[in-house]
Amino acid sequence: MSSKLKVAIVGSTGYGGVELIRFLVHHPQVEIVSVISSSSAGVPISDGFPHLTDIVVQDLDGVDIHEIAAKADLVFTATPSGVSTQLVPQLLDAGLKVIDLSGDFRLRSGETYEAWYKKPAASSEYLKQAVYGLSEVYAEKLAGVSFISNPGCYPTATLLGIIPALQADWIDHRTLIVDAKSGVSGSGRGTSLVSHYAEMNENFKAYKVNKHQHIPEIEQVLGDIAGEDVTVTFTTQLVPMTRGIMSTIYVTLKGDHTDQDLIGLYRDYYKDHPFVRVRGEGVWPATKEVFGSNYCDIGFAADARTGRLTIISVIDNVVKGAAGQAIQNLNLMMGWEENLGLGFIPVYP
Amino acid sequence: MSSKLKVAIVGSTGYGGVELIRFLVHHPQVEIVSVISSSSAGVPISDGFPHLTDIVVQDLDGVDIHEIAAKADLVFTATPSGVSTQLVPQLLDAGLKVIDLSGDFRLRSGETYEAWYKKPAASSEYLKQAVYGLSEVYAEKLAGVSFISNPGCYPTATLLGIIPALQADWIDHRTLIVDAKSGVSGSGRGTSLVSHYAEMNENFKAYKVNKHQHIPEIEQVLGDIAGEDVTVTFTTQLVPMTRGIMSTIYVTLKGDHTDQDLIGLYRDYYKDHPFVRVRGEGVWPATKEVFGSNYCDIGFAADARTGRLTIISVIDNVVKGAAGQAIQNLNLMMGWEENLGLGFIPVYP
Amino acid sequence: MSSKLKVAIVGSTGYGGVELIRFLVHHPQVEIVSVISSSSAGVPISDGFPHLTDIVVQDLDGVDIHEIAAKADLVFTATPSGVSTQLVPQLLDAGLKVIDLSGDFRLRSGETYEAWYKKPAASSEYLKQAVYGLSEVYAEKLAGVSFISNPGCYPTATLLGIIPALQADWIDHRTLIVDAKSGVSGSGRGTSLVSHYAEMNENFKAYKVNKHQHIPEIEQVLGDIAGEDVTVTFTTQLVPMTRGIMSTIYVTLKGDHTDQDLIGLYRDYYKDHPFVRVRGEGVWPATKEVFGSNYCDIGFAADARTGRLTIISVIDNVVKGAAGQAIQNLNLMMGWEENLGLGFIPVYP
Amino acid sequence: MSSKLKVAIVGSTGYGGVELIRFLVHHPQVEIVSVISSSSAGVPISDGFPHLTDIVVQDLDGVDIHEIAAKADLVFTATPSGVSTQLVPQLLDAGLKVIDLSGDFRLRSGETYEAWYKKPAASSEYLKQAVYGLSEVYAEKLAGVSFISNPGCYPTATLLGIIPALQADWIDHRTLIVDAKSGVSGSGRGTSLVSHYAEMNENFKAYKVNKHQHIPEIEQVLGDIAGEDVTVTFTTQLVPMTRGIMSTIYVTLKGDHTDQDLIGLYRDYYKDHPFVRVRGEGVWPATKEVFGSNYCDIGFAADARTGRLTIISVIDNVVKGAAGQAIQNLNLMMGWEENLGLGFIPVYP
Repeated sequence: MSSKLKVAIVGSTGYGGVELIRFLVHHPQVEIVSVISSSSAGVPISDGFPHLTDIVVQDLDGVDIHEIAAKADLVFTATPSGVSTQLVPQLLDAGLKVIDLSGDFRLRSGETYEAWYKKPAASSEYLKQAVYGLSEVYAEKLAGVSFISNPGCYPTATLLGIIPALQADWIDHRTLIVDAKSGVSGSGRGTSLVSHYAEMNENFKAYKVNKHQHIPEIEQVLGDIAGEDVTVTFTTQLVPMTRGIMSTIYVTLKGDHTDQDLIGLYRDYYKDHPFVRVRGEGVWPATKEVFGSNYCDIGFAADARTGRLTIISVIDNVVKGAAGQAIQNLNLMMGWEENLGLGFIPVYP
Repeated sequence: MSSKLKVAIVGSTGYGGVELIRFLVHHPQVEIVSVISSSSAGVPISDGFPHLTDIVVQDLDGVDIHEIAAKADLVFTATPSGVSTQLVPQLLDAGLKVIDLSGDFRLRSGETYEAWYKKPAASSEYLKQAVYGLSEVYAEKLAGVSFISNPGCYPTATLLGIIPALQADWIDHRTLIVDAKSGVSGSGRGTSLVSHYAEMNENFKAYKVNKHQHIPEIEQVLGDIAGEDVTVTFTTQLVPMTRGIMSTIYVTLKGDHTDQDLIGLYRDYYKDHPFVRVRGEGVWPATKEVFGSNYCDIGFAADARTGRLTIISVIDNVVKGAAGQAIQNLNLMMGWEENLGLGFIPVYP
Repeated sequence: MSSKLKVAIVGSTGYGGVELIRFLVHHPQVEIVSVISSSSAGVPISDGFPHLTDIVVQDLDGVDIHEIAAKADLVFTATPSGVSTQLVPQLLDAGLKVIDLSGDFRLRSGETYEAWYKKPAASSEYLKQAVYGLSEVYAEKLAGVSFISNPGCYPTATLLGIIPALQADWIDHRTLIVDAKSGVSGSGRGTSLVSHYAEMNENFKAYKVNKHQHIPEIEQVLGDIAGEDVTVTFTTQLVPMTRGIMSTIYVTLKGDHTDQDLIGLYRDYYKDHPFVRVRGEGVWPATKEVFGSNYCDIGFAADARTGRLTIISVIDNVVKGAAGQAIQNLNLMMGWEENLGLGFIPVYP
Repeated sequence: MSSKLKVAIVGSTGYGGVELIRFLVHHPQVEIVSVISSSSAGVPISDGFPHLTDIVVQDLDGVDIHEIAAKADLVFTATPSGVSTQLVPQLLDAGLKVIDLSGDFRLRSGETYEAWYKKPAASSEYLKQAVYGLSEVYAEKLAGVSFISNPGCYPTATLLGIIPALQADWIDHRTLIVDAKSGVSGSGRGTSLVSHYAEMNENFKAYKVNKHQHIPEIEQVLGDIAGEDVTVTFTTQLVPMTRGIMSTIYVTLKGDHTDQDLIGLYRDYYKDHPFVRVRGEGVWPATKEVFGSNYCDIGFAADARTGRLTIISVIDNVVKGAAGQAIQNLNLMMGWEENLGLGFIPVYP
């Protein structure tokens, strides 16, 4: 009889769900008891994802709260925004632990959610229960909780790049500008003209400029750190690649801090957290250097000429920006080593 | 006997040179009398560029000033930085008109050149003769001149995106931040680890942050427009694609101008210039929409929340950012229609 | 009053239609009088294809036979299979010339069409009127006709690679194997999981092995040339690129012909046709070397060790494999120069 | 004191070497005692491969046989052809076990080697000692040996696709044609015009048609299986992607075997080997479905119309085609589970 934690994955046929499977299959403390899809129940998961042939041989289950509760201890919900709003409360009420990868429980204010997501917000009773899982920043708050709201991909790269300097009060947050770039997998497996190969190949394009729903999430966390309202200018752009996010962050330095000062500050801030790697002077991370892994790599260029600091932060959007961080949060929730089952080297080249 | 202008192209085996050929072959007023390469003289140009098979059947010539002067009226020098420094004065002294695509004659100050390019500057006598060929902005100054210095690729996209708003005094230039992205062809045909397919595919990377030699070129022109020193924060980044530049420009608005105001301002500024296309409200150009063409497309996002304006400007780096603009400048120099021989529709998809 | 040929384009919002526009805008003998789309009538074509902004400013028209007949002399139908079946007869009956880019009129046998396309065939009365427009092979049959059926993309690359050797009786057609590869634009602008960027990027995949509907088209033409039934083994595969087809053709040589013999044979066969370029010994064309152009480039490797010949034939699938060849056929139909309006150099790199 | 096997890796700065590191770091029975590079000794390996930052912190060692022998039990030589010829005998003479990833010890005949590789062959004394490590086919011969020659990437995909049918005498080997496609990493990390991003992106190209040095390797193994000389027609082609090989194999069936027959035959042949996955009827593997993993996936299309069989076989060229199979061979050599340290799920998408 297994003493492993029994987990179910709702949304197993999306990129976040299938990436959860990639890692959890090797996780020493976890057993996947059910892979769930509302749209494809009853067929083998490898029909839609042939790379899983002979590896994950389970059929997809439908969404049935009682069945899930009977089988599982914890559920990852890798569902589209608007679905978790209804589903997560039912799972919690059935006594399950939940780690939610949608955006539905990240904003404390239902009003803000509705303004940016253009959908009805979850009930405030459940919004209050959610603990925001930016692993390196809130590790201590995550131990022992039953409900974690996993951060968005852009917020993860952006916040990990800003927070140490903001907390140290080295930067003027009123000048924050974030130029963010993402691989196309960030928009999910649903088909659309934007993600059509012939349209996106050999192309670089901006979308939702200053309108992306991850903006209030970033501002909420930065506001908590700063102790006052923070507003950011935020551009989202698509890169002709599958995985990877780079947030290029611009901010005015309050003092005359050098790259070396910043490297020291950040290395110290993240010293207990293996997945943030702070690069050396004059070296900036590229997205390929974290491909397929849970790392977030950060580099700096403090410019004496302009008094501004440029911070470059990269992640793999489906790992540290989704499934990987969700498992890191599971580890923190359960009191396991932070990198358990996640210690894979980036795939290079 | 042809009454066409006889042109020679030095550097015909680089991407800039071969792109000049692509357009000039169809130019109704031009005859290519010599394609020149210091490294590959004596062999057919199609040996190194098989796409020219049966189309351009000339052998490459070596660099011989007397021969060039005997054959040609005008020379395009698509040579690496540091080569034009020596070559262009000899061509000018031989009575030839010159359009130089290198960076060697863009900066008025030899000292600034040496600080950013780390090479000896051209003699000031010749630097003074060069007219900077940002076609849409300096069209009137280009008529009838004999020596044009063609702008860099990043400066073209960036300056065309900033100048109308700066000239109208709608923006605070002290807040200018430019996040620029380029396809890999921008680094030329020379081989290096950075341009290795397996390293750059599925990758997005920053380089020369705040150190790119195009920074002083941008600041020189903006300074001329503003009537005072301008300093920009400038990041250069490589996109896994061959062609295309996007400059994403951030600046604080002095007033409460809307997107519609900006669209009107820019359309008016560029009304006599067919190659700048100003997009409508809420629509931002993508690099693929100018692929293979001489267009520069511009879009806006004025953000009332932050008081900042985001300007998105895209070009094809080897056309409007190099060979195309050089031919546009030839047209202006000769008093021909600005778009003569250049009116091709972007190749899409 | 214009003396140009007035053309309408049905299917203007597909890749074939928009590529017709790219070339026809510059064609000296043609005026585009209507761009037609059944799905998007009434909106500017540049709404869906912003690269046409300020260049093609027409609104899309709906499909109305009387209106088309009132405005146009000739119609290009760049419609999906199954649509032309009904539409083309009505256009012909209205007295219009037609060049059809769908597959609906390529097979003489309606029965064969229905077996491979799984759709009802066009009526045999109209099938009989269609002249198959493989330009270089059937140039003489195309002069003066009113209805041309434009070849498929795979058949174009494949047939141009095989026919001269087959006609010379140098190869044993019973051994013909074709391994064909295509860029993703070949599957059109419709969205699907196969053309999803994240699925197709960094991927190479086979589909419809021995089942592609272009097989009977290839076999019909080869059978005509050989004077007996010809059967080919045919694999279709998708390459992570937008444009380009390579057909790698394997066949047993009847004699001991060398690469030089084949080069001579093919250069002679195509000597009056500018768009086929036969490469020299030991040099094989790459798809990028014809990108954006109407060329078909061919290379050979006769292998004395095995007695087999490998033929490599490349085209741009949306140009020589669709819109470009359609215009070449228009030129042949009208008695104009074969390359009128088509003489563009491939875009490289 | 560690009881793990101590391994050294020569050629640690090539793609094969760095991929060995990716897997061996997680291998439960192995300790990496030295990462060796003749060109970069003395610097941290993460200087050239920043994705290893904080994970592999060793400095690169130079090539010193005595030092290697003092530290290590076994050496992986991931060196270019022509280097292992000299190096491997010295390592063997020093009492080390060797798994060689170069092509220098794959061909039994030095004469054949010299004809195809155009380099001096290794001495026959050492050629004789090498055991060819096509894991699934020669598993039993590999147990307990000290020197394994690891197969080439193209031969691995091709041979695993052909051998079961050839051994069952279901196919006529005189008709074998292999159309092989590879990602660009196959040509290594050295820079060249062919691997230049701007040249290879949006491109598909053939090279070394019928001349690739992997041809005699394939023919040697097939000849052993068939018991007579086998000759193949073999085309190598580059795909614009980083990783992945597809071998599309054409051969005439001797009988009227169906896809189901072949699926049964292959599943039986590979039933004890976890890394070969035989796909179901009408389903063909894509390269992305094995990305980053040690799997070889195979699919079939037996065509009653032509009597020919098409076999599609895919691998990740740097894993099953190089480093992964080398570790699989280590496992077989040592008597460990075949998939120890290799059981990673492909990275998708």
